[in-house]
Formats: sequence, C-alpha cells, structure tokens
Amino acid sequence: MTITLDDTHAADLKSWLASANDPATEFPIQNLPFGRFRREEDSGLCIGVAIGDQILDLRRVGLVQGGQMNQLMRLPREARLAIRQAISQGLREGSPEQAKFRAALVAQSEVEMGLPCDIGDYTDFYTSIHHATTVGKQFRPDNPLLPNYKWVPVGYHGRSSSIHVSGQSFPRPLGQTKAPDADIPTLGPCRRLDYELEIGIFISRPNIIGERIPMSAAEDHVFGMALFNDWSARDIQGWEYQPLGPFLSKNFASTLSPWIVTMDALAPFRKAFSRPAGDPQPLPYLDSPQNREAGAIDIELEVWLQTPAMAQAGSAGERLMRSNYADAYWTVAQLVAHHTVNGCNLRAGDLFGSGTLSGPEPDQGGSLLELSSGGKQPIRLANGETRTFLEDGDTVILRGYCQREGFRRIGFGECRGTVLPAR
Amino acid sequence: MTITLDDTHAADLKSWLASANDPATEFPIQNLPFGRFRREEDSGLCIGVAIGDQILDLRRVGLVQGGQMNQLMRLPREARLAIRQAISQGLREGSPEQAKFRAALVAQSEVEMGLPCDIGDYTDFYTSIHHATTVGKQFRPDNPLLPNYKWVPVGYHGRSSSIHVSGQSFPRPLGQTKAPDADIPTLGPCRRLDYELEIGIFISRPNIIGERIPMSAAEDHVFGMALFNDWSARDIQGWEYQPLGPFLSKNFASTLSPWIVTMDALAPFRKAFSRPAGDPQPLPYLDSPQNREAGAIDIELEVWLQTPAMAQAGSAGERLMRSNYADAYWTVAQLVAHHTVNGCNLRAGDLFGSGTLSGPEPDQGGSLLELSSGGKQPIRLANGETRTFLEDGDTVILRGYCQREGFRRIGFGECRGTVLPAR
Repeated sequence: MTITLDDTHAADLKSWLASANDPATEFPIQNLPFGRFRREEDSGLCIGVAIGDQILDLRRVGLVQGGQMNQLMRLPREARLAIRQAISQGLREGSPEQAKFRAALVAQSEVEMGLPCDIGDYTDFYTSIHHATTVGKQFRPDNPLLPNYKWVPVGYHGRSSSIHVSGQSFPRPLGQTKAPDADIPTLGPCRRLDYELEIGIFISRPNIIGERIPMSAAEDHVFGMALFNDWSARDIQGWEYQPLGPFLSKNFASTLSPWIVTMDALAPFRKAFSRPAGDPQPLPYLDSPQNREAGAIDIELEVWLQTPAMAQAGSAGERLMRSNYADAYWTVAQLVAHHTVNGCNLRAGDLFGSGTLSGPEPDQGGSLLELSSGGKQPIRLANGETRTFLEDGDTVILRGYCQREGFRRIGFGECRGTVLPAR
Repeated sequence: MTITLDDTHAADLKSWLASANDPATEFPIQNLPFGRFRREEDSGLCIGVAIGDQILDLRRVGLVQGGQMNQLMRLPREARLAIRQAISQGLREGSPEQAKFRAALVAQSEVEMGLPCDIGDYTDFYTSIHHATTVGKQFRPDNPLLPNYKWVPVGYHGRSSSIHVSGQSFPRPLGQTKAPDADIPTLGPCRRLDYELEIGIFISRPNIIGERIPMSAAEDHVFGMALFNDWSARDIQGWEYQPLGPFLSKNFASTLSPWIVTMDALAPFRKAFSRPAGDPQPLPYLDSPQNREAGAIDIELEVWLQTPAMAQAGSAGERLMRSNYADAYWTVAQLVAHHTVNGCNLRAGDLFGSGTLSGPEPDQGGSLLELSSGGKQPIRLANGETRTFLEDGDTVILRGYCQREGFRRIGFGECRGTVLPAR
C-alpha cells in the first residue's frame, strides 16, 4: 500500500470550469470521481468524471474506448494514476486542451446516472464495532460482542441484482414474521423497515482462485468508494436468519451513490489505524506497518430523512446523525486480505459493503434500529413527527465528504432512496 | 406450473446417432441438456446440446445466433419448448435434416466444457430436513431443527466468482480457526474439508424488482438443473459464521456439472409432494394444487470418492452414498416463490443450490460431516483407507440420473473436483 500525493491534490489547483471552483461543490478538480451516465440520445451507459456541475465524457476526450467501466477499473494502479493525471491536466486553468475538454462536457442535470459499474459479487462486512455492540446489546445485554468479532472481519454474501443507483424507489417488502406469542408465522408487509449507512468499496485488479492478496498489495486491488444504503427488514430478519444469516431481509433493494471516489482522490485523508488499548492485535495476515500508519480513511458521513410531510412543506429533510468511517474496526486492506486468505477470487467491479457505520456515541447509530433502541424509543423530528422505523413515502439520503486542513474538501454526492407502499 | 409430456419423451424414440441409443448413455435423445463448450479453434464458448458421446453445436444448425446462453435461457417457455422440439426432430431416426445435424456434431472428448451460463447471483438453500436434522443434532442434540425450518425455505447468498465447471481443482483453503481450549485463533490450512451434494437450479425468465412470482408461475421461471458440489471448510465455518452466516468457509470453490438438464426433460420424473403427517402445511404463498400433485422430482443422486491410492490402483473410485432429490422438504417452485415474495428480482442464469441432499437413513448423508458423525467415526473404504474429512489429492464425483418404468433413463453427467495441497 503506497499513498501517493501528487499535484492533482494541490489545494490551490483550479479549473477553467467555474462551477468546479465553487467552494460548495462536492466535485472540485481534486476529486474526479468516476460514474456512468446516459444522455437521452445514448443507447448505453457512458463513462464520465464529475467536475463541478458537469460530467466529462471520457470517450470524447479519448481516455476510454467504450462504456466498459469494469475494464477501466481493472487497469494496474500506474495506468489509473496516468488517467487521473490526464483528466486533471485537461481540466486545469490554462490547459492547452481546454477546448477539447469543454466540448466533452455534459450537464449533470441533463443525464440519467446508472450504476457506476457491473457488480459481480457483493459482500457485506460488519466493520463498525459500535454498530455490532449496540445491536448485540438488544439481543444479548450481558454479552453484546460475539467472541470472533475482534479476530475475524465478519462478512457475508449479499445479492447484486437488487442493487440500484441513487434515486431508487421500491415497495415495502412482504415477508414471513412470527410474533413471540403467536403459534405460527404470517406473511405480511414489513413493519420494521430500516436503512443502513454504509460505504461501498469497489474492487479493481482481480486475483485468481487460490491466490491470496497480502496486506502489502491489498489496496492496489481497490478502485474506490461510494455511499451505500443496505435497506433492511428487521422483523423478517429476526425470523429467517437462523442458522445461515440474513436473506430476504436484505435482498429486496440496496442503493448506491452514482460516483466512485477513487482511492487516489482519498489519499490526503488517510489516518493512522490502531486498536483501542487492551484489544488484541490483528493476526499477522491482517497486519502491516502501512496499515497501522495510514489504514484508516477520514470520511464524514451523514444520514438525512425526508418524510412526505417535509417534502410537502418544501424541506429537503432533516439530518438524523453523523459518523466517521475512520471509526471502523477493520480497514479496507484488512477486508481484502481476509476475503482472499482462503483463495477466494475477486473480480473488477465486485462490491464490498463496510457494514453499518455507527459512531461511538448513542446519537451516532447508523440505522433506526440503533437510534430508536430497537423501536422502543421513537425519535422526534423537528417538525413534530416521530419515527421508530421507516414509513411509506420516506426518503433516506446518505451524504459523505472529506476535509482536512491544507486540502480541498471533496464530496461523494448523494445516495437517495424512497420507500413505496407495499403492493 | 404445467408439466407437459410430448413426443420428445417417448421411450421408443431413437436417434440416427448410434451412441445416443446406447443403453448406458446418460444423454439419449430424450434428455437434450444444454451446455457451453470450446473447440481448440474457438475464441469463445459455444452453445451445445449433449447427445450420446457427441455435442450438437446449436449455431451450426441455426437454432441460436451467438454464444449467449443467458439469452436462450430467458426465452418464454413456449419458445424453449419449440427449440427442444426442433432438436429432437433433427436428431431422430429418419430425420430429413440428418446431414445438416450430423455436420454440426463435435465429439465430447475433443472439447473443453465451460460453465453452462454466466451466473449472476447464487443463492444456497437448505432444503433437506434430513441434513438439517443430522447437522443440527451435532450442535443441539435435544433441539436439532430450529423453529423456522418447517415454515421458511431457509437460504442465504453465496459467491458466484468461485463457481467453476466440473474438473475444477483448488488448493485446500487457509483460514482462521480457534480450538475450544485455545485463547486465540490461528491461521492455517483447513482440517475439516468437506463436500456437499447439491442440485443446482438455473433461473430462466427474470422478474423486475417489486414483482412477486406466485407458485402458479414459479416453474416458468426455471430453466433446468445440474449437479453442484458446495465444498465446505467446517472448521473455518464454526469460528466465522456467527452472527451473519457462512462466508470464507464456502466461497473458495464450488463445482457445477457442465450440462443443464431442462425442466422439460425432467417432466416424466415428477412426483407428488407432501409433508410428513403432523407437520404444518406450507403458508398459502408456498402452496398450490400443482405443487402438491407434482412438485417433487425423482432424481437419484450419488457421491463417489477417488483417493490418490485408488487412482494409482486404476480404480474410478468408490460410491459413498445415495439419496434422492424427491426427499427435499421444499420444492423448486417454493424456492422461487419464497425468494421473490419480498420483491427480490431474479435474472436469467442465476443459480440456486438446493442445499446438501441427504436422505432419511444414516448412510445417506450428503457430506462427510454427516457420514463421519462430525469426524468422530471415520468411514472405512473398501481398499482399507479411512476418511473423516477430505485429504489432499482426493477427487469427489457427483452423479445423478432419473429413471421410471415406461421412460428412457436420463443422466446429468459428472460433477468432479479435486483437492490440491494448501499453498
């Protein structure tokens, strides 16, 4: 793992495109996240890079051939860095290529965004010890954390087909549930529908079956990150999940933000990673000097809720919580090294979910399950409404950004999804 | 669900190809399973149908355009039946198209088989109550079956990337395990490596997010079946799987047989499906008259083991057990209806695993975990060797076939995989 800071990260770098220099933009020239978009006239998805309120069509500046994002993602890190450098150069103030690059811009407001890549396999982890502890307490008050938690980056496989891009809406799922005092289960609409605030991590270079990826090479196999909402039906999960884990409680919908912020864009926001005093050190295959030095990433995260009443009143919603990805108990490199230690092969475009990213404080729960103490303490919204779990018409918006003294602030864009009534 | 028997199933139907009429062939003209193969000169995979010891190249007889099996799989059932009829007609004794079809044959011995289709998502179920009970007893002697078992077709998501075709070999996986008396876990080669005898079920027509597939339409969304070995690392699973289910214990390798036997080919082998006396009836969304009448499928299954010593002695291996798919507690239609009841979308080429198919008798365990009572009672092989779990160099072969008075016997071909030493 090598964290490279080059001139693409310089805080004083400016673009000839005014909207990229707006202090409020999430997409200044220091960010350059990748996504796929479709103009009205396009037959398929095109690869673009967000810049200010525009998108740079990479095919029109000759930086990619077709719309195959997964092929771009699997390039070696040097080639990806060269593309980042070329985009940065072309968008800079004074670039001799300004005319060519300007002709390749399309307004973000004029296109439809697609999923940023074709997702092969999706693995969801459980990297927030604060989430694992708070949720564990609801089931096992005296023993919230299971014995493996501090040794194994716990993960499980999720479903790719139902992952859609921001803007997704989906009907409230039906499912089997059984009340504790009932003799038999019944089928009905989920009554404990929840969101989960996660980071989505995209795989870059593949490995072949049987080939482990060591900690030292792990981040070369990661392309970048997006925001991810792993919608969850808590009541369905409670009845179905023994002994093989969550299934229909998770696979009815998951929502991704459209832009992949690359590991290279995130380079200035790396932080030292350490275990709390008294916790065991990771086993050697999950440890490295680089990981201790800079394994964590400082990403501020927020969950917003817009109820139908708020939308009607013209409100964009209310912030429910904030947390930071640097509080995760396992780093990205550790997830890659663990996932492949058994020889499992990863492919370009595969997605890891971080698991719900709760912070250490009670008001930092990354789900309503946590914020409402399992539905026992409704949260009170500023407009007088209350919520234990999500109601029909509710829209959940995830936001994320990185800021650090001496560097330009960069953002992730929105991850937005809406619950429709059950069919 | 409509089970159609037509002239393609007639027992006296013969082909102009002699090897298809060999009583020992698994691929008589009544079978016609689909797969993908590659001749030395082919740049990609081609779609073919197994007939006797040959493969009919479907492109060369004009029945498909390219090599996109998933496009063929998603055709409506009527279109799939028409293709089956056309293949059957062309291969029959006296066919006017004999010359054209003969020119499209290639010997099975001369090609390399690929995975039969591109697998999007893979879901593994747990449909054998005998397996669930036997394994449950090892952990909970007084309460082997969890309370949800007879209500929920328990399933979980697996990994697609490591599913390879018959002939796969893979190194023994490494993983974390913790001995009961140890303070901390260690990383090392799996010591309890096992196979699982399963049926793989392939999805045909897709549904869109939010759209349930009812029992009455469920089998129109199924293309066919193959044999499936869901290799399992029991010791890794024991330490990692709480609370979210199996992960690295399963995703290092899974092996599929190369031929998909279609639901149409299986039509003569359907059986009534019923619950044992005293068991609860399925909830209405998992029940239908057709399912009770013909929901089960009579497929004889076998597991064979070939140790390195057997291979050296020229032995093809020893049969370890036999079971029958009709003993499963949940039918294919029930798996489809349950998987989509929450609105989850299935795609053509998605794979379901049946879960380990053990029979009701102790010698019918579909895994070594069962046959060796959790490793406590080694099984004794005819050549004097013993096994609790798999050793390096062991080859596991799954076989399956259908037979019924008045119909031609059809087979699935082999599902073969070999354990290599840990790297």
